[in-house]
Amino acid sequence: MPIANATIHITDLALLRGYGLFDFFKAIDGQPIYMEDHLDRFENSARKLHLELPYTREHLREHIIQLTQLNRHKLLGIKLLCTGGYSEDGYTPTLPNVMMLAKPFVFAPAEKKFKLMLHEHQRELSDIKSINYLTPIAVLPKMKSEGADDVLYHFNGIISESSRSNIFIVKDEKIITPKANILFGITRKHILNIAKKGFDVEERDVTVAELLAADEVFMSGSTKRVSLVERVDNQSFTQNKVSLTLLEMLVENEMQLQ
Amino acid sequence: MPIANATIHITDLALLRGYGLFDFFKAIDGQPIYMEDHLDRFENSARKLHLELPYTREHLREHIIQLTQLNRHKLLGIKLLCTGGYSEDGYTPTLPNVMMLAKPFVFAPAEKKFKLMLHEHQRELSDIKSINYLTPIAVLPKMKSEGADDVLYHFNGIISESSRSNIFIVKDEKIITPKANILFGITRKHILNIAKKGFDVEERDVTVAELLAADEVFMSGSTKRVSLVERVDNQSFTQNKVSLTLLEMLVENEMQLQ
Repeated sequence: MPIANATIHITDLALLRGYGLFDFFKAIDGQPIYMEDHLDRFENSARKLHLELPYTREHLREHIIQLTQLNRHKLLGIKLLCTGGYSEDGYTPTLPNVMMLAKPFVFAPAEKKFKLMLHEHQRELSDIKSINYLTPIAVLPKMKSEGADDVLYHFNGIISESSRSNIFIVKDEKIITPKANILFGITRKHILNIAKKGFDVEERDVTVAELLAADEVFMSGSTKRVSLVERVDNQSFTQNKVSLTLLEMLVENEMQLQ
Repeated sequence: MPIANATIHITDLALLRGYGLFDFFKAIDGQPIYMEDHLDRFENSARKLHLELPYTREHLREHIIQLTQLNRHKLLGIKLLCTGGYSEDGYTPTLPNVMMLAKPFVFAPAEKKFKLMLHEHQRELSDIKSINYLTPIAVLPKMKSEGADDVLYHFNGIISESSRSNIFIVKDEKIITPKANILFGITRKHILNIAKKGFDVEERDVTVAELLAADEVFMSGSTKRVSLVERVDNQSFTQNKVSLTLLEMLVENEMQLQ
């Protein structure tokens, strides 16, 4: 149905208690990219929130394909959303409500470089792609006033991730990315696989100090691919050779799926 | 309208990003209890989430009264809900959607005593009554398997609150309650006001060890009033003299409003 007609009852637990999860991925020319990875994560998020998806993998897959056929765009963003369902007592999960939303998008221009603002925060249940974005949305006015495009979370001196992206640093051509207290991004996973073919790669804790002393910093995500970071707070990063190489390799990898 | 007819569009930010806040209070025989306190907190929560309520205090008040007249019950629970609104980009708040829900409820039986399970957690933006209940709902199966009725959060050795209640301990007839990293409950506030007339009262950090060594433990909330806690993890509490005195004084205070 047209998204304008899609409604949900107000007793849904996502609305009343923020209890829900989602996944998001892109289709290029009608071809979903890394779809099985995203379906794996979607099913895992549901399991970890003790929600039983009312649809099989095959059913979800078929409807994703149908969505891409009904929405013929060069680039299509597809969101799967699963909530705690219509709850009698307004607290206890019931049969989940599952929705699929499709919307065209465009990649940020190649020359776009991101400015990040450090923000002390640790996402709760970080390995679940939950719908909880309370902190990053509440901090939007502060971000805007500081001229930042997004936040970069840190806690106890260790960085974790941005609001909707993973973070990588490059130091002496070594690629380093946090591996704890993060959402394990699908694009992150494929970048790591690709990077291991040509670079030293480390998945480990990264301190704020180490981040600020990096040669290059980039973010990853389905629609961000590899996005260059030019500034974190007052620290600038001017190099981007390794990041751009990885971007090229990732694009090639995505194209091979088509 | 009947709650069964009340729907919201799926692009609402509460659904997509868990971005919303609420407040909840009771009416006894059609008389809202501590309504202005709840409206203060509702407006404050909205302000802290940078959401501009589209209704004046007077408008909200009138509709609450109307709701109590349309729903004639001995005890009525009233929920005000405010979301980030229908968001074009699925992330940035717009004009908030505001809903009011009314539903009869009953107090727990006077002899009901609660079992709590310690859970390491710190609610984000804890002074805002946000809709984020991801952690306590995800932990429901564990709670059930341990025979607990609710969680009691602690972090860095300090207790804060339960999922939907404030916590108090009594030691040597002194009443002690956390004052940091909590939601400031309206019932908590009135209990403190009442308690100060007859007891020593301290608002300060309370350690887990101190809690476990308390004489009495109780929770507070709009529909819980003063609820006795008989067990936290494996520690039992058998005394309840001060708690029951406070409950009596609170009930009397609420009745004076009518």
